[in-house]
Amino acid sequence: MDRERIKRLLEDVKAGKVDVTEAIRLLKSLPYEDLGFAKIDTHRELRTGYPEVIFCKGKTLEQIVKIIERLSPANKFIMATKADKKVYEAIRKVRTDAVYHEMAKTVLIGQRQGKTAEKTILVVSAGTADQPIAEEAVVTAEALGNTVERLYDVGVAGVHRLFDNKERLFGANVIVVVAGMEGALASVVAGLVDKPVIAVPTSVGYGASFDGLAALLSMLNCCAPGVVVVNIDNGFGAGYFASVLNQMGEAK
Amino acid sequence: MDRERIKRLLEDVKAGKVDVTEAIRLLKSLPYEDLGFAKIDTHRELRTGYPEVIFCKGKTLEQIVKIIERLSPANKFIMATKADKKVYEAIRKVRTDAVYHEMAKTVLIGQRQGKTAEKTILVVSAGTADQPIAEEAVVTAEALGNTVERLYDVGVAGVHRLFDNKERLFGANVIVVVAGMEGALASVVAGLVDKPVIAVPTSVGYGASFDGLAALLSMLNCCAPGVVVVNIDNGFGAGYFASVLNQMGEAK
Amino acid sequence: MDRERIKRLLEDVKAGKVDVTEAIRLLKSLPYEDLGFAKIDTHRELRTGYPEVIFCKGKTLEQIVKIIERLSPANKFIMATKADKKVYEAIRKVRTDAVYHEMAKTVLIGQRQGKTAEKTILVVSAGTADQPIAEEAVVTAEALGNTVERLYDVGVAGVHRLFDNKERLFGANVIVVVAGMEGALASVVAGLVDKPVIAVPTSVGYGASFDGLAALLSMLNCCAPGVVVVNIDNGFGAGYFASVLNQMGEAK
Amino acid sequence: MDRERIKRLLEDVKAGKVDVTEAIRLLKSLPYEDLGFAKIDTHRELRTGYPEVIFCKGKTLEQIVKIIERLSPANKFIMATKADKKVYEAIRKVRTDAVYHEMAKTVLIGQRQGKTAEKTILVVSAGTADQPIAEEAVVTAEALGNTVERLYDVGVAGVHRLFDNKERLFGANVIVVVAGMEGALASVVAGLVDKPVIAVPTSVGYGASFDGLAALLSMLNCCAPGVVVVNIDNGFGAGYFASVLNQMGEAK
Amino acid sequence: MDRERIKRLLEDVKAGKVDVTEAIRLLKSLPYEDLGFAKIDTHRELRTGYPEVIFCKGKTLEQIVKIIERLSPANKFIMATKADKKVYEAIRKVRTDAVYHEMAKTVLIGQRQGKTAEKTILVVSAGTADQPIAEEAVVTAEALGNTVERLYDVGVAGVHRLFDNKERLFGANVIVVVAGMEGALASVVAGLVDKPVIAVPTSVGYGASFDGLAALLSMLNCCAPGVVVVNIDNGFGAGYFASVLNQMGEAK
Amino acid sequence: MDRERIKRLLEDVKAGKVDVTEAIRLLKSLPYEDLGFAKIDTHRELRTGYPEVIFCKGKTLEQIVKIIERLSPANKFIMATKADKKVYEAIRKVRTDAVYHEMAKTVLIGQRQGKTAEKTILVVSAGTADQPIAEEAVVTAEALGNTVERLYDVGVAGVHRLFDNKERLFGANVIVVVAGMEGALASVVAGLVDKPVIAVPTSVGYGASFDGLAALLSMLNCCAPGVVVVNIDNGFGAGYFASVLNQMGEAK
Amino acid sequence: MDRERIKRLLEDVKAGKVDVTEAIRLLKSLPYEDLGFAKIDTHRELRTGYPEVIFCKGKTLEQIVKIIERLSPANKFIMATKADKKVYEAIRKVRTDAVYHEMAKTVLIGQRQGKTAEKTILVVSAGTADQPIAEEAVVTAEALGNTVERLYDVGVAGVHRLFDNKERLFGANVIVVVAGMEGALASVVAGLVDKPVIAVPTSVGYGASFDGLAALLSMLNCCAPGVVVVNIDNGFGAGYFASVLNQMGEAK
Amino acid sequence: MDRERIKRLLEDVKAGKVDVTEAIRLLKSLPYEDLGFAKIDTHRELRTGYPEVIFCKGKTLEQIVKIIERLSPANKFIMATKADKKVYEAIRKVRTDAVYHEMAKTVLIGQRQGKTAEKTILVVSAGTADQPIAEEAVVTAEALGNTVERLYDVGVAGVHRLFDNKERLFGANVIVVVAGMEGALASVVAGLVDKPVIAVPTSVGYGASFDGLAALLSMLNCCAPGVVVVNIDNGFGAGYFASVLNQMGEAK
Repeated sequence: MDRERIKRLLEDVKAGKVDVTEAIRLLKSLPYEDLGFAKIDTHRELRTGYPEVIFCKGKTLEQIVKIIERLSPANKFIMATKADKKVYEAIRKVRTDAVYHEMAKTVLIGQRQGKTAEKTILVVSAGTADQPIAEEAVVTAEALGNTVERLYDVGVAGVHRLFDNKERLFGANVIVVVAGMEGALASVVAGLVDKPVIAVPTSVGYGASFDGLAALLSMLNCCAPGVVVVNIDNGFGAGYFASVLNQMGEAK
Repeated sequence: MDRERIKRLLEDVKAGKVDVTEAIRLLKSLPYEDLGFAKIDTHRELRTGYPEVIFCKGKTLEQIVKIIERLSPANKFIMATKADKKVYEAIRKVRTDAVYHEMAKTVLIGQRQGKTAEKTILVVSAGTADQPIAEEAVVTAEALGNTVERLYDVGVAGVHRLFDNKERLFGANVIVVVAGMEGALASVVAGLVDKPVIAVPTSVGYGASFDGLAALLSMLNCCAPGVVVVNIDNGFGAGYFASVLNQMGEAK
Repeated sequence: MDRERIKRLLEDVKAGKVDVTEAIRLLKSLPYEDLGFAKIDTHRELRTGYPEVIFCKGKTLEQIVKIIERLSPANKFIMATKADKKVYEAIRKVRTDAVYHEMAKTVLIGQRQGKTAEKTILVVSAGTADQPIAEEAVVTAEALGNTVERLYDVGVAGVHRLFDNKERLFGANVIVVVAGMEGALASVVAGLVDKPVIAVPTSVGYGASFDGLAALLSMLNCCAPGVVVVNIDNGFGAGYFASVLNQMGEAK
Repeated sequence: MDRERIKRLLEDVKAGKVDVTEAIRLLKSLPYEDLGFAKIDTHRELRTGYPEVIFCKGKTLEQIVKIIERLSPANKFIMATKADKKVYEAIRKVRTDAVYHEMAKTVLIGQRQGKTAEKTILVVSAGTADQPIAEEAVVTAEALGNTVERLYDVGVAGVHRLFDNKERLFGANVIVVVAGMEGALASVVAGLVDKPVIAVPTSVGYGASFDGLAALLSMLNCCAPGVVVVNIDNGFGAGYFASVLNQMGEAK
Repeated sequence: MDRERIKRLLEDVKAGKVDVTEAIRLLKSLPYEDLGFAKIDTHRELRTGYPEVIFCKGKTLEQIVKIIERLSPANKFIMATKADKKVYEAIRKVRTDAVYHEMAKTVLIGQRQGKTAEKTILVVSAGTADQPIAEEAVVTAEALGNTVERLYDVGVAGVHRLFDNKERLFGANVIVVVAGMEGALASVVAGLVDKPVIAVPTSVGYGASFDGLAALLSMLNCCAPGVVVVNIDNGFGAGYFASVLNQMGEAK
Repeated sequence: MDRERIKRLLEDVKAGKVDVTEAIRLLKSLPYEDLGFAKIDTHRELRTGYPEVIFCKGKTLEQIVKIIERLSPANKFIMATKADKKVYEAIRKVRTDAVYHEMAKTVLIGQRQGKTAEKTILVVSAGTADQPIAEEAVVTAEALGNTVERLYDVGVAGVHRLFDNKERLFGANVIVVVAGMEGALASVVAGLVDKPVIAVPTSVGYGASFDGLAALLSMLNCCAPGVVVVNIDNGFGAGYFASVLNQMGEAK
Repeated sequence: MDRERIKRLLEDVKAGKVDVTEAIRLLKSLPYEDLGFAKIDTHRELRTGYPEVIFCKGKTLEQIVKIIERLSPANKFIMATKADKKVYEAIRKVRTDAVYHEMAKTVLIGQRQGKTAEKTILVVSAGTADQPIAEEAVVTAEALGNTVERLYDVGVAGVHRLFDNKERLFGANVIVVVAGMEGALASVVAGLVDKPVIAVPTSVGYGASFDGLAALLSMLNCCAPGVVVVNIDNGFGAGYFASVLNQMGEAK
Repeated sequence: MDRERIKRLLEDVKAGKVDVTEAIRLLKSLPYEDLGFAKIDTHRELRTGYPEVIFCKGKTLEQIVKIIERLSPANKFIMATKADKKVYEAIRKVRTDAVYHEMAKTVLIGQRQGKTAEKTILVVSAGTADQPIAEEAVVTAEALGNTVERLYDVGVAGVHRLFDNKERLFGANVIVVVAGMEGALASVVAGLVDKPVIAVPTSVGYGASFDGLAALLSMLNCCAPGVVVVNIDNGFGAGYFASVLNQMGEAK
């Protein structure tokens, strides 16, 4: 596309329709992405259906609505994360097709397009209180075109439930582990299966969990290889990276 | 295999060669890996040439040598990380084919087998002082069967060198970013290209870098999606995970 | 039990009622606990009356109620910790026999069974504000079948009250020390008596107590041997471990 | 002035109108500023129009109003920072000419006097949620007599928008960079342009941003020279320092 | 004994051999232990063979030797912890019967007396580098009269080795878990077996292990009950507490 | 007193009125304070008018009222700290003579007795927001029988006001410095005058003040000798220690 | 210049000398700096004499020498910071004109060119131990073409020496304050004079200075406006920024 | 004195010997101390024998020696703290009367003058490894003219030794408590006796003592009133403040 614009411009120069000074000015005013770093656009060309994403925390309702209105014409699929119910209700006033995933605190607006990857992402979570972040990862990965399975409530205190589901662990292509408190579940999973593990520490816990610091440090120090870590409570980031991994070998 | 052992046992029970009490005892004493979690072996079957890895820090020379002697008969390829020169010299006494990558502080023993992935892993590093960790990632990823390229010394103070190499950024399949100090390079790279980025904070810096804490926190909070983080100075972990990613879609 | 299931299966194999392939499939699908790690069940066999425990923090009322409904048929005794009044009221709607220990923020549902250990657990607390956590330890230890005594308000500023009660200190079998602020009470008690001390730092305090960090570090560094530490505000964990200790030598 | 007072006193001594003992007493009781450190007054003489500033956080409404009433007679221009709406409403009751910059949480009372510096301060912010702090910097710098431009929403995830505005980056005399999360924007800007950069970490983010610590450490460790840092969320301090810089070479 | 001294004194008072004023003075000067807190002596009466313990870190060789000389006449068994080789050599000059456990950095002087508890303490350690602390626990527990077994190198990366040894886990009376890095092993063990677990975080690791902080926080936040924690690298404390537990129900 | 009780007992033993076994029992059951540590009582004898103090934070209204009712009969003067308005109102229901110092969040109940020290304690505070803690120190020191002066709002940004009041600095016997943010005021005061300074860091500030940590560390590292520090926001502790100092040389 | 290259290219397209496809390729391959961010070069054009700077910490001697050899042909003036004596000796072997500022740990190679700014930068330091960092700032600012004065050893404990030098404080155009321990000197200076202050925390101190953290936090929280902060021990950064400020209004 | 100088000047003005302009100049150039803050001199007048103090850490041998040579003519008594043996040896070359207190790492040069306070300062220390800091406090307090007693090795693990010495605790006028690890000794002492306690946390310990942080936080949170804290390992500061307290009521 950009290539096309530049090509047309050069042809116009060649044809004498545009003089050199004007051509320089036009080249300079080409948006940045014309010069080779056209990340977002290229991206959209390659994998249609990828949503624009709005991180809602710290934004006012007015700002969020305004951003969605601005994005709506050009984007068939928009995603709003860390969105509480009020955010959803404000969005619904301008986009009646918005769907709210309450536990995941995620709003999906419009319709994802394109096919879904066949391989499975498994989202494993330790405790009931970790589910909102796990759901954020699930909803994100699904929105990005993946088949996602859940394996919840398999924390260390009930680790036999994890072992009972070993088939699902081995069957997954990518595993996301969501755990607060001591975050040991990531180490256990990585010690059992030979799959890439994306570890999400959560702020679940109390006392010396220090709002997720304990789980974060634990996961960073995981002595089994094949584990990488995202920010505390960053279910979206884990779902996004899991999607990148899962679609790595796929023809696009 | 395990299935075979269990099958034989059941047939013996059926045939009356083994009585039920004895069969229960035998079932209980089956080694763990017989029950489905035989990670390491399976692994080795799938992708021949994968090395056994020894993390040398905190181990005595005697312990390291003993582990290598124990692993040598069964393993064609062994890798020792965080190995200083004394470690290498001790290893060479028992394995004359050991090769030392001094900057990477890594010893490779024996010969990797199997083919090399075609797609490229690009290891980007910020400053000269980050190179030992970057090299650890490079040597690891190469040892695991990947084509690896280096893009060094492209830290924020010389960020134009990064932009000059945008072709290489776009050409890579997976990117490892190694940076100390403020660790911003991971964010810059992730903001420019749509490739999975594995960020490695290093302990390079002084003062409020707090031995890599500044870079670690910076990378964890990266606001561009598609970035995951490993432990401070964990070049091995980054190289390993990059290899998993890079070989994700490949037929094995 | 599990043993019984496996035995019956093998006998069926022997008798030709089940063929070998089917037997392998059945063995593989046996739940994890059949293979030797049946912690919870074994446990219940050994010491009847042990409750199932639900940690309420971070769970919604709906989730808590659902868990209790699921556990109710099989469990005579259920315990819910970190439960505020709303949790209790939600529980009471489905289990009218629920009893609320308000200060301990603990709900007991159903009736503990089995005998009570004769030896005494002494729960010592420093200040009035530490009592909720101390009560959580007391209620927990009682629920697990122990005789528990309280020795409250014997903090360092009123340490003579501790000395006045030396008979009770010496008479106890296990001592739980609950203290916030500087947490020195654990050291004082451990310096006076030769009994195992379980130290519980609390988040009581202000300023440089940093929500219990001061007490936690103080207790971890206790220079008197015989002291172990649990998480900040973890009265349940202390009560539980005290119970394990107290019943250690008892015939079960 | 002070010199005058001392001179008159000495002349009175010389003339015998004041005796020596009395002169010593008077000299001793001269207010501090008479002795050379008359910062605020001198200041006001040099650059008329400089406001008095009240930091509202932690002050009661009554205290704030009282301070404004006390300052009003002598000060033509007063500024109140970190002022929420209630503060503004309380101020307006005594000063109907108060103007509220809601996003900046800043109240301006009275009229700035004096000319405006010609050179431009550019305030760059990373994300929408950083705008309140960015606005605080903008309002402050404007109130101190500067031409200020905004360049918002150019965080790393949308870094191409930064590059699209390179003319504005190069055109500015002083740049303020406001960023939360990983704070990398300060490094990127400082790596691109050769202008003094005042970095303001914000508490925007979650998880391991630790209320702005990640951004703060990142900015302090910026490996590009020409970057200095102010306190987390200190938009006022950045605007103030930017003003000092911007007016450095100007005739006053 | 003390009781005897007081009794004799009172009988002397009764007999008129000691007058009341003198008796008061004598009562006041009775050593502390006479007044009821005679911890160490009582202790020694109850379980002969308990050693005196010297913590060597931070003490000069001269101080250590002097303490041992002072203790030697009255104590049949002395133990020196955190003792490097130089300490041992200095001790051997005054006590030729000193035995050095090099890996445990522990010196045993003299001969433990009394019988050994029958039940077993199992010391589990994660990695080779954790062994010095594990050995400190082992040597301590043995010195205090316990049967101790080792289960080493069963960290999460090789967790199948842990499962292979489940019989030993179930057979132990008390379990000590020694682990650095992410410290997840304590959680895994506590999730598998219903035995009291004493968790010892070690300073083994690098980067974000922050000298054992990661393992410490992880262990404190263990979501499986039945886990208590001692200071980082405190193998002695764990061995000591394990001994107290192990001998809890034993007749003494 | 205690001496009297012991004397009488010994005389009874001598007279044969009490036999030796009974005497031993009585000696053992003497309350702790009989043995020499009767701190509180002695204290009250020495300096009549000293109040009993209740720290209200973390206590329920019911607990506070109950403690006051228990203390009331024996104590002419009671003090409640960190008491918000609700606490005061609850107290007033049982003690109508309670007086509330609202800014100091302190309730005084009853009438202090005894004379007032002549020398002056000067309480210096940095900013308006520090006044609640400064007032707590003032009210405490006055309640303990001292003449207290205030020197408020002399923070570093208005340090000339401090210099204007040098007479008062030099005239004081003991100085309490209350400051949040960077806490530099303590250093400045200690650098100017040769009086003991008790530094109170406050949680006033934002961002990298980290709830008082910045001020606390600053004060602990004060390079001028003659400065000691109390906990963040501990106005009571500072007032109490200032009182002890101020009355040090006084005849009591 | 770049404009010229693009213009020539377009004219060649127009003239048919270069076809469109080739022209697109050439446009894409233009080096980064052609597009407007040629920071370093522009910079050098504007203010001749600016040195290239090498940060030596973490680099090997070989790497440092190699960098200098590479820079030498094109750069008349090179500066090496955090350079210990060995670094200097290695440099001198390849550049005999290298001059070592030992206390500043800085090597200057070659000759600065261009005029020196007339206005003065004053570098103020608290204690003798802070001098190495202060000297680094001095040497840096001088190397960048400024007149620099020193005011050393005026820490809070000897703050009268600061007041004695008020003329120099008022005479400076920019002030750099270098202080460890509590870092209060920055606040004191900023409270006294109306000049921009660049605060450099140093790692000088012990105990709760936590390697400069106390000074860093103190300086960040400075309640006097006009203070900005650089990294702990970053004398170079402070000298650099001071130079930018000092030359702000100067014709270049 | 200063008063005299000013008086003479004014009289000269009156007499016409000095004209007014010159008088103003002279007044302005009067050294700082003339204006009322003559701390050090006044000090020296009041309590002869007070030493000048040099903090040696971070200073080179040359700097220390130079400072002593500069101070020697005017000061009869000089004290050097945190001085290792090399410092002492360097000092002895220029001052042969220097006396080294090796454990206290303190050098005393010259002879203290003036009388010694009668009341006693008691320095209590927890463990053998805390003695160097305790000795620093002792030597400091003695050098400042106080009678000092030692009560060492009375840490919590041997707290009965503290109780055995209650007479000495009650007999002291001021108590300094020096303790590392958990620092509980300060709380215990403050809970037992009604004397002002100056708490010195030490960096003695390991693991979660975090170089004295645990002891520091513990002491700051001491719930017994009458405790103030100095920096970690600051024996000098404690000895100095204890001296100020001890001499508070004394005629000077």
